[in-house]
Amino acid sequence: MPEFRKIISKDNSLIKLTSLIQKSSKARKEEGLFVLEGFRICMDAAENGVSFDTLILSESVYEKMSDDILFLSKNSENGAVVSDELFKKISDTASPQGIIAVCPIPEISTKLNACGRYVALENISDPANLGAIARTAESLGINGLIITGDSCDIYSPKSLRASMGTLLRMPVFLCDDILSFIKENSLRGFACVAQDRADILFGEFKFSNGDVVIIGNEANGLKQSTKENAYKTITIPMCGNVESLNAASAASIAMWELMK
Amino acid sequence: MPEFRKIISKDNSLIKLTSLIQKSSKARKEEGLFVLEGFRICMDAAENGVSFDTLILSESVYEKMSDDILFLSKNSENGAVVSDELFKKISDTASPQGIIAVCPIPEISTKLNACGRYVALENISDPANLGAIARTAESLGINGLIITGDSCDIYSPKSLRASMGTLLRMPVFLCDDILSFIKENSLRGFACVAQDRADILFGEFKFSNGDVVIIGNEANGLKQSTKENAYKTITIPMCGNVESLNAASAASIAMWELMK
Repeated sequence: MPEFRKIISKDNSLIKLTSLIQKSSKARKEEGLFVLEGFRICMDAAENGVSFDTLILSESVYEKMSDDILFLSKNSENGAVVSDELFKKISDTASPQGIIAVCPIPEISTKLNACGRYVALENISDPANLGAIARTAESLGINGLIITGDSCDIYSPKSLRASMGTLLRMPVFLCDDILSFIKENSLRGFACVAQDRADILFGEFKFSNGDVVIIGNEANGLKQSTKENAYKTITIPMCGNVESLNAASAASIAMWELMK
Repeated sequence: MPEFRKIISKDNSLIKLTSLIQKSSKARKEEGLFVLEGFRICMDAAENGVSFDTLILSESVYEKMSDDILFLSKNSENGAVVSDELFKKISDTASPQGIIAVCPIPEISTKLNACGRYVALENISDPANLGAIARTAESLGINGLIITGDSCDIYSPKSLRASMGTLLRMPVFLCDDILSFIKENSLRGFACVAQDRADILFGEFKFSNGDVVIIGNEANGLKQSTKENAYKTITIPMCGNVESLNAASAASIAMWELMK
């Protein structure tokens, strides 16, 4: 268990760093660090093999030092304890639980399994959608999540919260262009598009190992080149006046069919 | 087209009423009125046969009086024009478009079609989930939405926005108890439950006309009595460490299977 050093000043470098990586995706990338806040997500991460660089506790959490906090402390290289007042400054939530883990961003996976089935997200922008899709993907047994670099940050507090820890458990692959990336790994990409002009329909097509469903941006869908160069375009047959489904709803159905 | 009376005072009764029904579900029920705010949702509602009691325009929107606004005015019994400043007071959004329609809550449908396929929501609490589920339901051709009275208000600004107008287009049935309500209409209710203890699995069961999938509250799932008295309990087979799917994601898969 690390020694917990006491921090008093809001100008302390760890306090400044933590505030910064809570807020800024750029800072997370530059520092190679992200933040887990709250008891449950820290516990979940520790149990799934994520080691902490520094565990920061509020004074009241530190003083109680429950068995669970002791367990989490042992998972951390360094420890710090700050006043409850100062803790509020580094917290991203309205009612802080007094526990934050600063963690190194893990090395991103690069090798897709040629027999796996994956979901790929191109320029997804809403962390709530990303989180919901990741949760569904994990629960349906999808082998991993492929995501383009222009999507929202998987290590933002919002994404991590919305995914309820899933993003720390399942393999995540970052790439610039989905089709180039999956073709290198000999997988087939199915571009999910709105109703018109699709080659095939969900519900009528049987997927195989090595297939990837590709979901586009919430407002603009997929890039033209992705639609043109995918193995097939595929759609959910629709009725009514709805222009398109919510990205997470469409992804649920797509992943469900992929895994059948 | 109604005459547009000019309102100057923030103490005017229409101004007070509009603010109130923007905010309070109780007031909406008591007054039998709800609010549509923004150009697109008003247009969509008008095109789908929703008549307005009063159309309230900001001065700048009134002065331009585009063809579309003229069309909407003709759909309204009464008209009012208020200063842009005063409009902000009755608006629910950060950047008001200067158009609000006060509408009578339509009579709720009561007669289910015995050959229809429905989705039922028991005590759903998040307007964003309600809206997303309604959108998916309409696009998959579900015949209507059954919702219990303890759910979030379908006429709240949040629900209406999230549903992108769907809640004004598709048949909505309000009830106290879903199973009593659907049994009166000779339909079969399938209680969607978490993994364990389900009679059947999605993907292995073929639904028929007259079937209803029942989705429970986001945090607590379905009431015990609903699970016990449903025709069957049914679940989405899951892997991984995820405890349960997001309500809207689960509902998407359930409705997709229901409509196959």
